[in-house]
Formats: sequence, C-alpha cells, structure tokens
Amino acid sequence: MSPLAGRGMRTSIECIACFVRQAAEAVGLVVEDRRREELLRLLLKEIAACDWRGSPPVVGQVIHRIIRRELGVDDPYRALKRHLNDKAEELVPVIRETLGRRSDREAALLRVAAAGNLLDAGAKSGIAPQDLHGVLQRLWRLPFRGDARDFFRRTAQARSILYLADNAGEIFFDRLLVEELPRDRVTVAVRGAPTLNDATLEDARRAGLTGLVRVIANGSDAPGTVLADCSAEFREEFERAELIISKGQGNFETLSEEDGRIYFLFTVKCEVVGRKVGAAVGTLLCVPGGGG
Amino acid sequence: MSPLAGRGMRTSIECIACFVRQAAEAVGLVVEDRRREELLRLLLKEIAACDWRGSPPVVGQVIHRIIRRELGVDDPYRALKRHLNDKAEELVPVIRETLGRRSDREAALLRVAAAGNLLDAGAKSGIAPQDLHGVLQRLWRLPFRGDARDFFRRTAQARSILYLADNAGEIFFDRLLVEELPRDRVTVAVRGAPTLNDATLEDARRAGLTGLVRVIANGSDAPGTVLADCSAEFREEFERAELIISKGQGNFETLSEEDGRIYFLFTVKCEVVGRKVGAAVGTLLCVPGGGG
Repeated sequence: MSPLAGRGMRTSIECIACFVRQAAEAVGLVVEDRRREELLRLLLKEIAACDWRGSPPVVGQVIHRIIRRELGVDDPYRALKRHLNDKAEELVPVIRETLGRRSDREAALLRVAAAGNLLDAGAKSGIAPQDLHGVLQRLWRLPFRGDARDFFRRTAQARSILYLADNAGEIFFDRLLVEELPRDRVTVAVRGAPTLNDATLEDARRAGLTGLVRVIANGSDAPGTVLADCSAEFREEFERAELIISKGQGNFETLSEEDGRIYFLFTVKCEVVGRKVGAAVGTLLCVPGGGG
Repeated sequence: MSPLAGRGMRTSIECIACFVRQAAEAVGLVVEDRRREELLRLLLKEIAACDWRGSPPVVGQVIHRIIRRELGVDDPYRALKRHLNDKAEELVPVIRETLGRRSDREAALLRVAAAGNLLDAGAKSGIAPQDLHGVLQRLWRLPFRGDARDFFRRTAQARSILYLADNAGEIFFDRLLVEELPRDRVTVAVRGAPTLNDATLEDARRAGLTGLVRVIANGSDAPGTVLADCSAEFREEFERAELIISKGQGNFETLSEEDGRIYFLFTVKCEVVGRKVGAAVGTLLCVPGGGG
C-alpha cells in the first residue's frame, strides 16, 4: 500500500467542538475585543463550511491558516512556543538525572518522549515554576502502554529511521530519546511552516537536534502529517524510511495505522482517539502500526 | 431598578466553544449520521450569526429552538430528563436519611439543593447504579460557600418566596429544600416550555412539588430566566416576590446580581462563572444578590 493512501482518522462530530475551543483560544491572541468576536464568527462559519471527511489536522490546517491571515502575522504562537521551549529546557536536566537512576531506562525514555505533550496541556493553564516538580512527579505515575524492548530492537535494526516531531517544548524531550537512537541513521522531520504550537526548524535548532542528527522540514503547515500536503522530497523520505517514529496525537490522526513501519508514540489527549486505540485519556502510548 | 433592567452576564468568547459542545451533544440525538453533520453545520452558522451581547442562555435559547425545529420534536431531551428524574428519585431516600443524621442540617439542605446539578453532569457520562454511592459521598466533601443561617433567617421572614427551579432530576433535590421552607408562602417556577434538560411543569409534578406548594411556568423556553422573554404574569410574580431563590447557573447568568432580593444557589460549572463569583469550578454556592 502506498503511504499516500494512508488517510488517517476521519473528523468526528466530537472534534468540531474541539476545533471551536482551539479557535476561541487562538482568538485570545488578538488584543482588541471587537476583533476577537469578528474573527471567531468568521472561524465558526469556516468550520461549518469545511470538508469534515479528512482527519482533524486537515481542518486544523484550514483554521490556523485563517488565523494567521486575519492576524497578519506568520506565527501567532511564537511567544507560546518560546515559553514551552523555555519550560522544557528547564525540565531537561532534572529528567536526565532521573533517567540516569531508572532501572527501566528504555521504558523511561519512551515515557518521557510520549509525555512531552503534557507540557503543552500544562502550558495552556500556564506552568508556574513551583508546578515543575508536580509535572515531573506525574510523569512516572502516568499509565504507559508499550513494549520498550520491541521498540529499541526495531530501532537498532532499522537502516533508516524517520522521526516525526510534534510540538515545540516537546521536542526537547524528543532529543533525549533521539540521543539513544543510532543517530547516523535518524532523520528528524518538523513542520514546514508555523502552525499551532507545532515544532519547526527553529525549535529543532533550539532543542539542539540539528547538531545531533539530520533535520528536515516536511513542507506542510498542517498540525499533523498530511502526506498529500507535504513536499515531494519529504514524501520520498517517508516512502524510503524503514522505520518511522510518529510523535504526538496529530501525527497519529493523519497517518495510516496500517503502516507497519510506523511506531506511534503519544499521549492520548481526547476520548475520540482513546476509543480508537482502546486506552484512557492520559495514557502514554508506544504502539506499532498494525499493517506491518 | 426594574428587574427587567437586570440583564445578567454577557456571553464571553469562552462560552462559544461551550455552545458548540452543547450543540454537538444535542446533535447526537439524531440517529442518522448524515443529518447530524448537516444539523451541526447549521448550528455553527447560527451561533456565528447570533447576537452575543445577551447572556449565555439567550444564545442557548436560539440553539435549542433550532434543534427542536430541525428534529421536528417538541422535546428532544425527554428521555434524558426521564433518566435524570429516575436517578434523582432513587437518590432521594438515601439523602433524606443522611440529612436526618447531620448536625448541620441547614447547610446540608443547601448543599443538597446546590449539588442537584451534579446529577446532570454525571448523567452525561451516564450514572450507573454502582456509581450512586460515589455521587452521594462526593456531595458532602464538595467545597461549600454560603451562610445557611442568614438564608433560613431570610426565608422565615419573607412574606413571599419565588423559587426558580433549574433542571429535571435536580428538581427532586429542590423538593427537599422546599419542604423546609414556609410552604404557604413559596411559589416554585419552572420553564414555560421544554429547553435543554430544564425542568417544566411535568418534572415539577413528577418530583411531587405540585402537591406541596404553588407551581407556575415562566412562559419562556430560555435555559435561564430571561425576564423580557417571560410572560407578563411571571414578571409580575417576580416583581412582587420579597425573596427569590434562584437555582442553577443558567438562572444566575440571566438575572442581575445586583437584585438584593435574590439568593443564588448553584454549583459553579465553568471558569467564566467561577471568575465572576471568585470561586473554583465545583464549588457549591449560596450567595445573596449584592444590590439589596
């Protein structure tokens, strides 16, 4: 099966309210009250007019393009992303130290990478420095589902690994995992342009990934990996990769779960995805694609 | 100040996502997938076109009118309300027994009435019989803010009390409180027509309130008390009442907090209202209007 045929999940009725929440949050970036209302009205109409047959990030892409266009800025999430990167950078030394003490190092690395998303959810309500300790504590207590041994066996064997990054901030946690992979065979891919709080080349650089492995942009501004929207170069990389590590829920939603080359690594963030994978919201997942 | 001038809260940007969530849930009442999508698209466009200057229940009224019209049924929530009433009826004897044992009977009665909303929230995810015990346990542990002594002093003194009911199910809990008020001076008001899961005359009858006190309908199908939309008869009752007990968040959102004759009794269900009253979501509140 061509990976291009992998269409990912379909947008469900439940996703629509979530888009609107996201739109309302984005609209909060506008300072002027009157503009906020106008922009949200426009977004509601656009969401109503969207094709809902694609995966949620396809609708997300439409929303975030409109937000950028209407605000007249190329990256409305720049400040939030900087904040996420700052917080992640602060957390990394402590996590690194804890990782050094864990007897389950392999599972712990996957747990850290999957839980990178937590920082994102936390950031919405603003992680205060005094909350950092709580975030770290929670990390080791969250439910985890995955076979770390199988994951590392496959990464050791693969001749080429494509690592699909997800968000800013989170990408610092990815770095901890990437350090333990066969680096000369790893390529990290980020979004081709700013969209939501997703990681771009700038964030990969900031997290020190560019000095560690090969990093590429996927050519798309979808908050996921919509292959048909990615550059031909990226699609070629995707086709060629022997193993693909897909980080985050957005990438899971857009890629075919049937592609046996993919290892999905993410935190279940909503009921819709939870039902699909048969795991509760909040579960850290490391699951191989089923079609392999 | 005329109570008609009391306009309640203004709809905020954060409320919009909540309306869409509510609309998406209502759309779930449609069996056919294709119709669901069409109806949700229509609702999104209508919400975008709404006047957002009114209180949230004013927008809710528009949404629920469209839902009833499009579904071609006068009460799409009938089954849910029956379920809520059934569950409440099951809970009442246990609560009544516990109330009998409490040394803080007055505060406990207010706590029970305010927490009536819990059954609503619980019902969304479906209260299973084995969860009933948990619901009851939670009731006594929730934060409560109010002066029960002042509340009962004022109800004892008032020559006329208008009790504004909120939801089906919850109305059984209201009955427990109404039993302890000077019944000959109490009038309970319910919505004038079905809207969301709000209580109507049918529910008041089912909860046994009609045999206990005078019960009237407010003439409106807003999920709150939008005075300008209520019947002239109800508005007269409202003007005349010496004390008004306003149950639930919808009634709080629509009535002026400045009206000193009102005692608001509800559970804080969202951040917007939480910020307004300075209490965390989940707090049981019994607060007098400030303008008195």
